Amino acid sequence: MSYPFLKGHGTENDFVLLPDPDGSVHGDLSSERVRALCDRRAGIGGDGVLRVIRTAVAEGAASVVERSRDHAGAEWFMDYRNADGSLAEMCGNGIRVFALHLYDEGLAPAGEPVRIATRAGVKVVTRDGDLFTAGLGVATVLGETKVSVGDRSWPAVQVDVGNPHAVVMVDDLAEAGRLWDEPSYDVGLYADGVNVEFVVRRGPDHIAMRVHERGSGETRSCGTGACAAAVAAAGAEAAEAPGRWRVDVPGGRVEVTRDAAGHVFLTGPALIVARGETDL
Amino acid sequence: MSYPFLKGHGTENDFVLLPDPDGSVHGDLSSERVRALCDRRAGIGGDGVLRVIRTAVAEGAASVVERSRDHAGAEWFMDYRNADGSLAEMCGNGIRVFALHLYDEGLAPAGEPVRIATRAGVKVVTRDGDLFTAGLGVATVLGETKVSVGDRSWPAVQVDVGNPHAVVMVDDLAEAGRLWDEPSYDVGLYADGVNVEFVVRRGPDHIAMRVHERGSGETRSCGTGACAAAVAAAGAEAAEAPGRWRVDVPGGRVEVTRDAAGHVFLTGPALIVARGETDL
Repeated sequence: MSYPFLKGHGTENDFVLLPDPDGSVHGDLSSERVRALCDRRAGIGGDGVLRVIRTAVAEGAASVVERSRDHAGAEWFMDYRNADGSLAEMCGNGIRVFALHLYDEGLAPAGEPVRIATRAGVKVVTRDGDLFTAGLGVATVLGETKVSVGDRSWPAVQVDVGNPHAVVMVDDLAEAGRLWDEPSYDVGLYADGVNVEFVVRRGPDHIAMRVHERGSGETRSCGTGACAAAVAAAGAEAAEAPGRWRVDVPGGRVEVTRDAAGHVFLTGPALIVARGETDL
Repeated sequence: MSYPFLKGHGTENDFVLLPDPDGSVHGDLSSERVRALCDRRAGIGGDGVLRVIRTAVAEGAASVVERSRDHAGAEWFMDYRNADGSLAEMCGNGIRVFALHLYDEGLAPAGEPVRIATRAGVKVVTRDGDLFTAGLGVATVLGETKVSVGDRSWPAVQVDVGNPHAVVMVDDLAEAGRLWDEPSYDVGLYADGVNVEFVVRRGPDHIAMRVHERGSGETRSCGTGACAAAVAAAGAEAAEAPGRWRVDVPGGRVEVTRDAAGHVFLTGPALIVARGETDL
């Protein structure tokens, strides 16, 4: 069976998009197919799959939505899967690519914000030229912890952005060495693993980071990681204050904004680089 | 500009194919475009690019063929580029995918061997169902050398298959550890670098290997590496004898045959997994 796909990325966090408006192309979308598509040698390659399916159809399929959520007003559901085939709640870089696709195909009205249903609820994405902004919820600084790589250790800041982070301030991004192995961390604090950001200050409200994502290794970009890094770098004295930070990641640049209510917003580019058919 | 592409692989050595019959799509094909296409995050991803261009057109373009060769009787030229954009002579896994594409598109008559022009001269590919066989020339065992990874060293066999190899017989493929760094070798012997194969015997005429390709790191498969490993494992006493070896590589399985004249032939699968349009 041959079916359509697109490939796109946001700051080099890359995805295979599967248009499947009424769910008839992929049904339950097996984890085997997701792994085959994301395989970088034998498949197309990607950090994950973004199935583009109508919310009304997805809500009728428990295996897709996982549990009932209020997706009112969001016509399209971002059925996000990790490269290993597992379900994922949300992806801060992926949702920009998803929104671009909706605009490109006329599935969302140009010039208007688009409401996108996800397993983490409805997210609103706005577009300003080539840049897309998505709200990622509240980023909460929780306290101090410690992270080690090889025989080096650093103090770290524990941050929650819906998922767990440990942010390490360093003088040089090379300090963490080659992040081939998962950094060591407090397993009491992070029973389900943790995303670790190594961050340097580049200037006022400007940082650069590398990130080791749990289960994925070092990646080119991590949306929630950029938010965690920004609020941690802002420091305890500014922990609740609105702000705007430029965050350089290995795959490009994003911007993190925090409003007066503590909500963080991630702004960055989105690109579709190829489209076609596959029978993977 | 949007143009067609396909993605395929042979034992997970993967390629972006660019149909360009009369050379009008890509002209000189810039190394920038090759790098953009092969980028595994921002592009489509591949170990290299296979441009499918008519030999008559390619021979008129010095930058494509590099130097004059006799390509008589070979209608199609495999314009192979490494992922870094550099020109490459030949690719034992790539030429199978190239041949599959010609058969798929009716550019070569089904059921007949196809002659394919390359920078290493004309190669003949035969098809038997899902398997393709290509001649890779003569594999010559040259002598003994030594290879090191970290603080371990092994004796190695120096083999030439048009390109240089060092073959290490090990008891366990895990012995070489994580091949993140290039193994150390005799730089006097291998001034331009070397491909290193770690090989275990699995049975009579059956070996398994891992390979570190110069400039690429550890890969899933290497066609000339499989030939070098097979003839080295055959041992000095059989150095000139015809033979047939099954070679397990991380990306699958190939078969190496040597005829009475010392020519080696590589047999393996070829797959096209996606096709479409890109503007990279």
